[in-house]
Amino acid sequence: MSVGKLLGVGVGPGDPELMTLKAMRALGEADVIAFFAKAGNASHSRAIAAAHLRAGVTELPLYYPVTTELPSCSSGYRDAIGDFYDKAAADIAVHLTANKVVAVICEGDPMFYGSYMHLHARLATRFAAEIVAGVTGMSGCWSAAGMPIAQGNDVFTVLPATLPEDELSRRLAEADAAVVMKVGRHLPKLRRALDRSGRLARAIYVERGTMADAKMIPLSAKPDDDAPYFAVVLVPGWQTRPGAEP
Amino acid sequence: MSVGKLLGVGVGPGDPELMTLKAMRALGEADVIAFFAKAGNASHSRAIAAAHLRAGVTELPLYYPVTTELPSCSSGYRDAIGDFYDKAAADIAVHLTANKVVAVICEGDPMFYGSYMHLHARLATRFAAEIVAGVTGMSGCWSAAGMPIAQGNDVFTVLPATLPEDELSRRLAEADAAVVMKVGRHLPKLRRALDRSGRLARAIYVERGTMADAKMIPLSAKPDDDAPYFAVVLVPGWQTRPGAEP
Repeated sequence: MSVGKLLGVGVGPGDPELMTLKAMRALGEADVIAFFAKAGNASHSRAIAAAHLRAGVTELPLYYPVTTELPSCSSGYRDAIGDFYDKAAADIAVHLTANKVVAVICEGDPMFYGSYMHLHARLATRFAAEIVAGVTGMSGCWSAAGMPIAQGNDVFTVLPATLPEDELSRRLAEADAAVVMKVGRHLPKLRRALDRSGRLARAIYVERGTMADAKMIPLSAKPDDDAPYFAVVLVPGWQTRPGAEP
Repeated sequence: MSVGKLLGVGVGPGDPELMTLKAMRALGEADVIAFFAKAGNASHSRAIAAAHLRAGVTELPLYYPVTTELPSCSSGYRDAIGDFYDKAAADIAVHLTANKVVAVICEGDPMFYGSYMHLHARLATRFAAEIVAGVTGMSGCWSAAGMPIAQGNDVFTVLPATLPEDELSRRLAEADAAVVMKVGRHLPKLRRALDRSGRLARAIYVERGTMADAKMIPLSAKPDDDAPYFAVVLVPGWQTRPGAEP
């Protein structure tokens, strides 16, 4: 066991002010800052954290070899992404072995649908590791929309829009409140599933939820089916349930 | 429309360092700080925020008339709690009408299973309102446990332990990852539902998740069925799924 330490640092959904005090402190203490980015693109998480990076801190960008839009069920994707995480973990391990503190900065919450956990699984058995929880992207979205999402004994579900239409429809009908992720090209199918499950009227479409140029409209009022991969659809529970107060 | 403003301020799961920079700023700007508490008890949310309250700020404690452990389906409970929220909203409206900024400080995230949304529903149509998203209690729990909860195309579900055993078992079997809330006296039933759904082996029992005296053990290793109302059980998805990497 080295005295190096791995930090998985959630920096929240996009607004730099939605970083926690703990994340800010972790960034100030780290010797190395690592972050994921698409090849050829700036890192979202680094942009969120930029104001809190120490001058001269070592930066370790981790560039995805393929885009996350590719079907994750293909063996080619799985091999490439597995090799990528192996290599990224090995690069970080070099610094940990040299007794450095490495902060991996993560959009949202590190353990909730984040790439960080692939590094955590590879490194936390060999090195000290600590997680700094973050505000999730979906909390950022429903807060920006001023929308109560779930209350009391609501069943709340997060679904990927990649599911087959029948399954989406069935799961939406069974949940009091839901967030559907990875909307992108699945929007026409998702619309049908929301309609079949009686949830279309209260579905809210959100793009860039906590950015200055956020777009939030009732899905039923959205005139087209253009949606980026990271768009989400919110289906609030409590607020519109029969018998809900006030 | 008054120029007073209502702020729903998430202060995170318990560790004061898991407050956001935005929450800290909101507390510094507010004229009035309101918070929920059980009658006769100190407020958890006020304790989390204590270090950031301005000297001399007006404090408005909102004491629940009955404990949340009572069955929420009874009409007596519904009347009492409805009257309570009406009165609390009216007390806050007095300050908003006087053009004050009122921050309601909330454990976790204000719009996710929080009491704040009862005030929001009563006031946001008449006064300007803004939400400051917070780290949820469940994020605090799985982060403190160092446990990746959901990844990729996982279906993630939040369930109240109050559900009937058959429904709990069916919903657990259908989710890749789950958080079960409000465990309390429902633990024996929840244990059976986890066993029937094949999820018992990977279930983690958590008490006071982000407090210094947090207790986290595999549920299968917990020797008794004593559990407070706010205990949760985490069922991680990805980490232990067949074919999960590495």
